[in-house]
Amino acid sequence: MNNKTDDNLVRQVMFAYSRAVAAKDADAFMQLYDAEVRVFDAWDAWAYEGRDAWRDCVRAWFAGSDGGIGATFDDVRASVATGFATLSAIVTYAAIAEDGTRTRELQNRLTWVLRGDGGAWRIVHEHTSAPIDLGKAKPILRRVP
Amino acid sequence: MNNKTDDNLVRQVMFAYSRAVAAKDADAFMQLYDAEVRVFDAWDAWAYEGRDAWRDCVRAWFAGSDGGIGATFDDVRASVATGFATLSAIVTYAAIAEDGTRTRELQNRLTWVLRGDGGAWRIVHEHTSAPIDLGKAKPILRRVP
Repeated sequence: MNNKTDDNLVRQVMFAYSRAVAAKDADAFMQLYDAEVRVFDAWDAWAYEGRDAWRDCVRAWFAGSDGGIGATFDDVRASVATGFATLSAIVTYAAIAEDGTRTRELQNRLTWVLRGDGGAWRIVHEHTSAPIDLGKAKPILRRVP
Repeated sequence: MNNKTDDNLVRQVMFAYSRAVAAKDADAFMQLYDAEVRVFDAWDAWAYEGRDAWRDCVRAWFAGSDGGIGATFDDVRASVATGFATLSAIVTYAAIAEDGTRTRELQNRLTWVLRGDGGAWRIVHEHTSAPIDLGKAKPILRRVP
C-alpha cells in the first residue's frame, strides 16, 4: 500500500506543519488543510467543521503564545493509497524561550487523514488528544518514555 | 470518492461495533480490528500497538462493566477510496441498567482508518478522545448539544 515517493510526500506535510508552527505562520499552516476539514482538537471544542472555523482557532493559538512554539513528531506511522493517506504520531508541542531553551512541553497523539491529487496532500481530518487518567479523571499531558 | 455500496460496507463496521459492545462479545469486537492495529484510546495509555495489546484492554473493559453497555454514533462522516476508508463520529457510551434505562453516559470523538480487501473492512487505526478544558485542565466528557 505504501510506496516510497508517496510516503515522502505525506511526510512533507509533517515537516511543513512543524515549519509553520515554528514561524507562527497561520497562512502557511492553513494551506495544509482542506476546505471541508473536520478537526477533533485536543482542547476545548468537540469539533471544528471546515477550514474557516479551524483558522480562527489556529490564529488564537499562535497569537496567544508568548515566545516560540515547536512541534516535533515521534513514532510516526504513515500509509498511502491512491488519493488517500493517513499518518499517526506522538507530537511534542514545546514553548521555546528566546535563548532557544524549551521552557515547557506536552505531548499529544495525532491522527491525520489526507486527500491527494497531483502531488499536493491536504488534511481532511485531524484528531489530536491526550489520554485521560481513568482514576483521576485528568488528562495525561506528558508521555514518560 | 464515495460510492453508496462501499459507504454502506464501512457503516457496517459501525453497526457491528455497537452490536459487539451491547453483547460484550470481545471475540466479535476484535474481528473488526487488523492484526497490526494502532489504537489511541481515550483512557490511560498513549497507544496500544497490535491486536493482542488491544484485546487485553477490551476484555478488561467488558469484564469491568456491571450492567449493560451501549455505543451509539452521531455526526458520522465516512469516506471510501480503493482499499482504504475512514470514518469519524461522536460516540455515546452508556451504562444500561437491567430495566433498559441509561444510568450514565459520556461522549467521545472517534476516528477510524480502515483497510478493505474483498468486502471485509478492518480497523487499522482507531483514535478516541474527549476534548480537554484548557482553563480547568480537565476532560470534557459530556457534549452539550
